[in-house]
Amino acid sequence: MIIGSRPSLPASVVIRDVGPRDGLQPEAPVDVAERIALVEALANAGLRRIEAVAFVSPKAVPAMAGAAEVMAGVNRRNGLHLAALVPNLTGAEMALESGVDEITVTVSFSPEYNQRNVRMTIEESERAISEVTQRASSSSVPVDAVISCAFGSPYEGDADPNDVIEMARRLGDGGVESITFADTTGMATPRRVHDLLDALARLSPDNRWVDDVGLHLHDTRGTALANALAGLERGITRFDTAVGGLGGSPFAQGAGGNLATESLVSTLDDMDVETGIDLDALVAAARMIERLVGHAVPSGVARHGSRLGSTP
Amino acid sequence: MIIGSRPSLPASVVIRDVGPRDGLQPEAPVDVAERIALVEALANAGLRRIEAVAFVSPKAVPAMAGAAEVMAGVNRRNGLHLAALVPNLTGAEMALESGVDEITVTVSFSPEYNQRNVRMTIEESERAISEVTQRASSSSVPVDAVISCAFGSPYEGDADPNDVIEMARRLGDGGVESITFADTTGMATPRRVHDLLDALARLSPDNRWVDDVGLHLHDTRGTALANALAGLERGITRFDTAVGGLGGSPFAQGAGGNLATESLVSTLDDMDVETGIDLDALVAAARMIERLVGHAVPSGVARHGSRLGSTP
Repeated sequence: MIIGSRPSLPASVVIRDVGPRDGLQPEAPVDVAERIALVEALANAGLRRIEAVAFVSPKAVPAMAGAAEVMAGVNRRNGLHLAALVPNLTGAEMALESGVDEITVTVSFSPEYNQRNVRMTIEESERAISEVTQRASSSSVPVDAVISCAFGSPYEGDADPNDVIEMARRLGDGGVESITFADTTGMATPRRVHDLLDALARLSPDNRWVDDVGLHLHDTRGTALANALAGLERGITRFDTAVGGLGGSPFAQGAGGNLATESLVSTLDDMDVETGIDLDALVAAARMIERLVGHAVPSGVARHGSRLGSTP
Repeated sequence: MIIGSRPSLPASVVIRDVGPRDGLQPEAPVDVAERIALVEALANAGLRRIEAVAFVSPKAVPAMAGAAEVMAGVNRRNGLHLAALVPNLTGAEMALESGVDEITVTVSFSPEYNQRNVRMTIEESERAISEVTQRASSSSVPVDAVISCAFGSPYEGDADPNDVIEMARRLGDGGVESITFADTTGMATPRRVHDLLDALARLSPDNRWVDDVGLHLHDTRGTALANALAGLERGITRFDTAVGGLGGSPFAQGAGGNLATESLVSTLDDMDVETGIDLDALVAAARMIERLVGHAVPSGVARHGSRLGSTP
């Protein structure tokens, strides 16, 4: 027997494309000019928030070298917010110097992952975030804290949602403007998304950052879109995705690509949830990133075209 | 602000693995002995319904040759239901002769797809189904009618749910025991699943087959799992999936693989929805089919292992 009714959905969502950063990070380095062209293609497709670069050691992450050059090369049109990932105060200085609109910082809920990723304890990472946040605040640039492995890790297994929210609360109290919960290694299922959001509703009902919570989902085990929709049905309206579905940490065992921007946009389009993004232009950008990295991207929409469009 | 609450879910679902049929169908032919071993591996993993073969022209679909030999080679243990796909009365005779527990027939909601797939009009297909159903009924073997392109096709675009339900009603009135709605070319989104189930609830509230409605989903555009969960939340408890996520019609433009059995089982396990299937044994079967077809399978769970398991 058919039961229930369709869930009600928000009218619109904000998508931050992390393809130029998270997508390209594990790949062989791509020329600065081509990375600028990718950011431009995304902006032209209607993306208004793009994580364009990371100010990290070029020795540790060769694909992210030339961040200042990428920032300088993008046509800074009205309404386009460029974000940079930074690991510490030095990175923050460089990011602010380059004129970013938003800084993203990251700390893992998994101590082991945090060690492998940035060779710091969680306490050290939270201290670094605090320094970055104070510095960014003095330049009136907002900081988004991404909690990686927020749904668990291959090292410690499932994450306790209460403890994850506790970490988010510490970061929020420390001054970050928003929190993004990341499923770095594809441990999340809709059940885990609901668990985390239940804990959020229970533990932080009046914390000011609660209204700007985002989800950053990886499709390691094919659950990313289902997880995003579970979040959407609970009122989450900000998502990190990567054009083409590329991505994954070079330091994480078992990481898989990000939720593809075009997968989410295609589905939201069909559900009349506004994104402001042109799907055909986005698919063209996915084909561009495919050329830049020299191999096929995992995204089915990039491969097969939009639902009602002509096949590629 | 976090709103709503998690949807309530059925306690258990029935999964019919169509990997030995839909999964292998577009591949280079695999030996009968290996196809038997695959069916055995699935049965040992706990699958109780398996679409093991198709009795079709070996000239048209070389990978399905030797159906009777596959059927004869499987150890018919208690509770294991083997299904065979048949296109017509001749196929049905052969299937019944081989001792199948269930016959599946198919007709497309898309006239163009139906022509390409079986070179028949929809009327001709419905007539063939009627003949098969009468013959199977005289042997007390149930028939499941799979409506392909039930969410649209690349030829005609989106399907009108009312008309799809009308086709289902005709098939139900004609005597089939159950109906399966298939998203053959990956047109479905959760919105389309809700549309179809709304139409079903509206138009066929007391038709006897309504309580045995299944979904057969393809992951062409990455939406298969999200679509399955949308169905689950509306009370659908029967799903066709294919081990490894292989599949796709050799005749359909733009078809992609089936929802991987292990993707669905992994997610349902984590949501405490009972499947009776052992995930590790299922992942082993996915690795087996990978060897049989000689290339990687699309399933992320097969590639990355179970959520909490060791990485492969």
